[in-house]
Amino acid sequence: MTVTPRPYAFIGCEAPYGEAGTVIFGAPFDSTASFRPGARFAPQAMRVESVGIETYSPYQERCLENLRVFDAGDLDLPFGNAARALDEIERFAAGVLEDGKMPCMIGGEHLVTLGALRAVAAKSRGLHLIHFDAHADLRDDYMGEKLSHATVMRRAWEILGDGRIHQCGIRSGSKDEMDWSGGHVERELFGASRLKDAVCALRGAPLYVSVDLDVIDPSELPGTGTPEAGGMSFKELLDALLSLRGLNVMAFDICELSPHYDQSGRSTALACKALREMLLAFRRPSSR
Amino acid sequence: MTVTPRPYAFIGCEAPYGEAGTVIFGAPFDSTASFRPGARFAPQAMRVESVGIETYSPYQERCLENLRVFDAGDLDLPFGNAARALDEIERFAAGVLEDGKMPCMIGGEHLVTLGALRAVAAKSRGLHLIHFDAHADLRDDYMGEKLSHATVMRRAWEILGDGRIHQCGIRSGSKDEMDWSGGHVERELFGASRLKDAVCALRGAPLYVSVDLDVIDPSELPGTGTPEAGGMSFKELLDALLSLRGLNVMAFDICELSPHYDQSGRSTALACKALREMLLAFRRPSSR
Amino acid sequence: MTVTPRPYAFIGCEAPYGEAGTVIFGAPFDSTASFRPGARFAPQAMRVESVGIETYSPYQERCLENLRVFDAGDLDLPFGNAARALDEIERFAAGVLEDGKMPCMIGGEHLVTLGALRAVAAKSRGLHLIHFDAHADLRDDYMGEKLSHATVMRRAWEILGDGRIHQCGIRSGSKDEMDWSGGHVERELFGASRLKDAVCALRGAPLYVSVDLDVIDPSELPGTGTPEAGGMSFKELLDALLSLRGLNVMAFDICELSPHYDQSGRSTALACKALREMLLAFRRPSSR
Amino acid sequence: MTVTPRPYAFIGCEAPYGEAGTVIFGAPFDSTASFRPGARFAPQAMRVESVGIETYSPYQERCLENLRVFDAGDLDLPFGNAARALDEIERFAAGVLEDGKMPCMIGGEHLVTLGALRAVAAKSRGLHLIHFDAHADLRDDYMGEKLSHATVMRRAWEILGDGRIHQCGIRSGSKDEMDWSGGHVERELFGASRLKDAVCALRGAPLYVSVDLDVIDPSELPGTGTPEAGGMSFKELLDALLSLRGLNVMAFDICELSPHYDQSGRSTALACKALREMLLAFRRPSSR
Amino acid sequence: MTVTPRPYAFIGCEAPYGEAGTVIFGAPFDSTASFRPGARFAPQAMRVESVGIETYSPYQERCLENLRVFDAGDLDLPFGNAARALDEIERFAAGVLEDGKMPCMIGGEHLVTLGALRAVAAKSRGLHLIHFDAHADLRDDYMGEKLSHATVMRRAWEILGDGRIHQCGIRSGSKDEMDWSGGHVERELFGASRLKDAVCALRGAPLYVSVDLDVIDPSELPGTGTPEAGGMSFKELLDALLSLRGLNVMAFDICELSPHYDQSGRSTALACKALREMLLAFRRPSSR
Amino acid sequence: MTVTPRPYAFIGCEAPYGEAGTVIFGAPFDSTASFRPGARFAPQAMRVESVGIETYSPYQERCLENLRVFDAGDLDLPFGNAARALDEIERFAAGVLEDGKMPCMIGGEHLVTLGALRAVAAKSRGLHLIHFDAHADLRDDYMGEKLSHATVMRRAWEILGDGRIHQCGIRSGSKDEMDWSGGHVERELFGASRLKDAVCALRGAPLYVSVDLDVIDPSELPGTGTPEAGGMSFKELLDALLSLRGLNVMAFDICELSPHYDQSGRSTALACKALREMLLAFRRPSSR
Repeated sequence: MTVTPRPYAFIGCEAPYGEAGTVIFGAPFDSTASFRPGARFAPQAMRVESVGIETYSPYQERCLENLRVFDAGDLDLPFGNAARALDEIERFAAGVLEDGKMPCMIGGEHLVTLGALRAVAAKSRGLHLIHFDAHADLRDDYMGEKLSHATVMRRAWEILGDGRIHQCGIRSGSKDEMDWSGGHVERELFGASRLKDAVCALRGAPLYVSVDLDVIDPSELPGTGTPEAGGMSFKELLDALLSLRGLNVMAFDICELSPHYDQSGRSTALACKALREMLLAFRRPSSR
Repeated sequence: MTVTPRPYAFIGCEAPYGEAGTVIFGAPFDSTASFRPGARFAPQAMRVESVGIETYSPYQERCLENLRVFDAGDLDLPFGNAARALDEIERFAAGVLEDGKMPCMIGGEHLVTLGALRAVAAKSRGLHLIHFDAHADLRDDYMGEKLSHATVMRRAWEILGDGRIHQCGIRSGSKDEMDWSGGHVERELFGASRLKDAVCALRGAPLYVSVDLDVIDPSELPGTGTPEAGGMSFKELLDALLSLRGLNVMAFDICELSPHYDQSGRSTALACKALREMLLAFRRPSSR
Repeated sequence: MTVTPRPYAFIGCEAPYGEAGTVIFGAPFDSTASFRPGARFAPQAMRVESVGIETYSPYQERCLENLRVFDAGDLDLPFGNAARALDEIERFAAGVLEDGKMPCMIGGEHLVTLGALRAVAAKSRGLHLIHFDAHADLRDDYMGEKLSHATVMRRAWEILGDGRIHQCGIRSGSKDEMDWSGGHVERELFGASRLKDAVCALRGAPLYVSVDLDVIDPSELPGTGTPEAGGMSFKELLDALLSLRGLNVMAFDICELSPHYDQSGRSTALACKALREMLLAFRRPSSR
Repeated sequence: MTVTPRPYAFIGCEAPYGEAGTVIFGAPFDSTASFRPGARFAPQAMRVESVGIETYSPYQERCLENLRVFDAGDLDLPFGNAARALDEIERFAAGVLEDGKMPCMIGGEHLVTLGALRAVAAKSRGLHLIHFDAHADLRDDYMGEKLSHATVMRRAWEILGDGRIHQCGIRSGSKDEMDWSGGHVERELFGASRLKDAVCALRGAPLYVSVDLDVIDPSELPGTGTPEAGGMSFKELLDALLSLRGLNVMAFDICELSPHYDQSGRSTALACKALREMLLAFRRPSSR
Repeated sequence: MTVTPRPYAFIGCEAPYGEAGTVIFGAPFDSTASFRPGARFAPQAMRVESVGIETYSPYQERCLENLRVFDAGDLDLPFGNAARALDEIERFAAGVLEDGKMPCMIGGEHLVTLGALRAVAAKSRGLHLIHFDAHADLRDDYMGEKLSHATVMRRAWEILGDGRIHQCGIRSGSKDEMDWSGGHVERELFGASRLKDAVCALRGAPLYVSVDLDVIDPSELPGTGTPEAGGMSFKELLDALLSLRGLNVMAFDICELSPHYDQSGRSTALACKALREMLLAFRRPSSR
Repeated sequence: MTVTPRPYAFIGCEAPYGEAGTVIFGAPFDSTASFRPGARFAPQAMRVESVGIETYSPYQERCLENLRVFDAGDLDLPFGNAARALDEIERFAAGVLEDGKMPCMIGGEHLVTLGALRAVAAKSRGLHLIHFDAHADLRDDYMGEKLSHATVMRRAWEILGDGRIHQCGIRSGSKDEMDWSGGHVERELFGASRLKDAVCALRGAPLYVSVDLDVIDPSELPGTGTPEAGGMSFKELLDALLSLRGLNVMAFDICELSPHYDQSGRSTALACKALREMLLAFRRPSSR
């Protein structure tokens, strides 16, 4: 009898690395989470639960099975050492980019974005960041720490500069970070209805798209570390993401799913569906 | 002292069988559920939780206590034998119809609809099916099985024929079943806003109304076997159901509540409220 | 080493009593809850979870830290004795009013409103009550009891008289209480979109604002005793509350959070955010 | 077609009232619970979950189906009014005793025992009470209230007198109630290993057996209002209960299951099994 | 960059098939579960959670990493068709045996044992079955069905004959199946303390070891379909399993973990540990 | 009216700092947790839930109210920076010791023990550590990190030296750490039955007692990060702790409660009871 091991991959993402245009990897790190940790379990949970969705999208009328995606599994990240974890992430994402493929990272807490962003910024001049989030994440430090999921966008700004970060859905922040951001970052409070207009100016520019899932209302996605009432619906997020089709997305991520806080499993199911749509929307011709 | 046993019935549905115009029965079967089972617990859970809602509807300004409904309890269905379970359901529903009453079935997984539909179709020529669901359920087989909750609408189509199935709220399916359906079934993707127009043409025609509760967004109804983000709200479903008032509904069902996946109990509470509204909207003069 | 005990207060509400304009107190009573009890745990849960939100509101562009609020902790209320519990609440609220401060009560079940309302009504002639709720709460008695969370608005009407109670969001009630209310109370079913107009006439009049959190849809707030589908969103409630800014609010409360029914914690987080917005919207210059 | 309503009864307890030797009734009252309420849901939950156990006991080699038990359903008890609730319970239990049958009450919080005990004590001189509990329940008042689940045994002592209450498994109490009990009640701390000896002296005497389920360790029964580590196992409780076989049990109860605090359902399943064993052990020849 | 897919295997079980002495496979079938389904999720959950235990056993002072085990993933079994599912299982287990390796099956409900047992019995004359379970599983049919998790041991007896099934830990059954078993199966009620003696006579005989995890007390393993109070502890089960070391175990399985009924995850963790110990205790020299 | 803020303290621990003999403080840090984080919530959860237990211990016949304990609340520890967090803990514990009081720390993950231990070791020559745990925690590094909850006892050994660490209840570890420990640490596998003998030799020596709550069986304490079957019971742990009475305990801690993983709340309740018993057993005359 010939028996081979079962693949451990997001549904429909079983292409070999060499043939893949997009490469999924998990960044199971949550050591700086300031409220409820557990985002480390997200990539694993999403692979397991992805069997509950179809590979076909009726929104885009496309199927994951016609895309060539490789799922690399999770990186081994050291708990409690943010600097080393970010280095590991940067190194892996750089390797994927080097091979001409698009990195798709599943967090983890939002700080992991910094690692992947560094790798992309190193290759792409003039990079813009489209940022969906309930929280501004623009503090300069958090309890004295520079590397935190509450400071990640400030660190990103240090790399990208003024006017390069476009925030959507923000509905929480300290007075200081809200005041600071004027002139430094673009922001739409509470939703993303103006994104369609904003992206016109970004046509052709290299983009990094980062989704902190707490941008979604906690009714639809309770499984997250810092639930914040008054959020966007899945439909609104999907509309916003689909409005980015045709732009030059270099890499993207989906962060801050904390699956253990949702016994019903629907948070993970929503995250899987969002990832399917992003994979289909931001796809790149395979490297073959 | 004279003491009689407490009735075990959905709230306000304690009429004797002989006097009832509508007959509730549970079909606690979920053996073909492809993802998360547990819909077998729905009818029982709904009876228990129904004390948390009122018998009066402010939407219709009517009260269940002015209706004559009998609750027959649950059928004894053999776990793991879909064919026999469907026969039992068909037999019971046929008996209810024979007595001039309207069957109201509480599933169970969606496959149970096939049993009741057979009974109604046998009595009513030209039957149409109004189908609320997140999933198309139109596969020809599922892992080789013809009887499955993923194939139930294909089996229904074999009975009813082209143009008789009207699907609302669908937002998930394989590419094959989506492609197949053109020409065979009517379908509105993602919602039911066009139903009002569609039903004009159905005035007078015999109807079967089937609600797979996963048509509702998982935020409002997490307790279901295959949660699918981006669904309809309760208000939207209610609007759609109330637009069917005055039509010739022969029978109806409500399926796929899996109560154990919602520790908060609100999924069951929503299902109870939906059932109350359907009982009031599709009522039939009592047989007396 | 000098070490002082940590304050046990809602976030940003650590002013001394003497300097405070608003005084928070908990009324952890739920003995008459007719369906699922547990609202007694709400004030404590809200203090603990309040660290998950910011003190700054991007909706009002104000910060709790610039307000002077004192958190008095919870009253000691006797389980199972509604009359005595109401007396305790009335006595405490009267003391707060006597000192020229605004009482802000965290329930508990909705009956506790009666205690605080008595204290306010004793001081303020012509008091109006703005009442957000899924349930009319207008029964004359419940299972023979006059003091119940299902009768609280009837008792309030006995104090305030016709036309003084303005209900929003109601979507459940018995036929009797719905019929009774015409002529006695003002009511908007299902939402609060007409509140803005109604409040014009209330400018200058003394107001009591009472929020039964089950007015919110159970998808956003599953942690409540009697979840009722088809509710308002947090955004809708917030809009309604903010439309009351500038009116003469004497006291307010937030009731019926039952935190144990929501393992995800988002119900409590929403309640915290609603309370923050109410504190900022209805604030009063400090007594200093 | 002839269809009769399904009985709503504990498994195997469907005898008509007239033919029954034992009568089950629920007392869904929990308004004085001092920590976590919810015992009101116990009788209903136990009926529903009882289908998960067999009617046959391998411990006693007897079957419920050979016993004649009637299940009267739940009494309608007014939330928040302990005195009236106890009167209702007493009245019903007295009726059952009057008809020569044995009352078996499912609580509710432990205070309900007082109602049934009054009825039995009125008929049986020299009544003894066997009391399984984690808590002594001997306070004279609780927050000023005489009627509370924390005072129920003090009230029972006022009826029965010194040396009539035999407590097992106690592992929690205030210093005052622990000190008071010497000379008034018999007590075995932490377990029930000495019960076998104690009951020799009770042969022939009329007995009331009351089980507060929190006597069981919270690992086996987490679904209770005041979990207290270090409890008895189900096996130990069963041994103790079976040691009472052959004694003159007049009535018994099982209290303080709070099913919503155990999502796994095993607390309710254990309570069902304990009730089955008590019904079989304390059975009485039917009244026929 | 060279990147290979992550293995999806039970911890420490990543040997290639050709080199393995033991072969794990999942049988995710639960369509005949009579109470709470969900055992289909067990194999997947156990692989994911196995990272929470060590590969080293301090009980046996051996390490999984020194064993050669291959994990084949889950079989594709048709929901709702027990006969076909058993055929698939039998075919796979027969292939493993044919290759000289030991099958280790993770259920699924207990009926799956029948498939693997058929394969082993076909190769091994005089096969004995060691059966750990809370339930006798000896009904001749269940609601008319011959293939059910409640009848699996009766079907096994039809293959193996009298005196070949050795049951431990049984504490639930109908009167009929309990009566029938005398003369047909060996049984120790409530525990397994006498197993050590029994196995002396089995030295050299071919054995199949089947663990229905509900033999464990629900306090330690709430995540199962039919929790039954009064069970064995993990320590007792482990002692019993280790007493089988040195016997001629041909195949073994572990069934009836239903992970969704235990939000704490400890049921799955216990099952992982039990599987580790069984793999180490019943190991076979690799085929190399 | 005079109103003072409510204390936020473990039940019965409201003495002023100056008068206290024992000082409780929380160390809400869990950034290096290798499996399930969430221990950061433990000190807060224990304060809230402590109202569910009595201040009186029937085991020791003593009452917390007769002890003078101060509860300092939680330290502000930087998420994701283990070295800084340990420094904060060490600094605070040293201050408490300096003032002649006994530190009682509530973790957090087990790494926090290192901070407090450093402070005690700096003051007490010849310090011994009594260590209750399921896991050996003796790795030299974990994924390259020296500071981890999996290495904490190795770091402790570097401070204390050979033969100073006494481990009880260990039932999990890698082969390497198990092999290493011979000659370096004392260890009783699986339980603590031999502790009574061991402590004879420790009479008079300064002791630090550290309880990792996962030493308790997951059935009694599911709310922990790395549940490990086959653990000690609360009764066994209590016996072991009480056997240390009269010894020279300088400081103690209780770690690794992760309350969100136990929806029933019993894990926190058990931890509260264990802490009460430790406070009473290791008490020190107040500084007055």
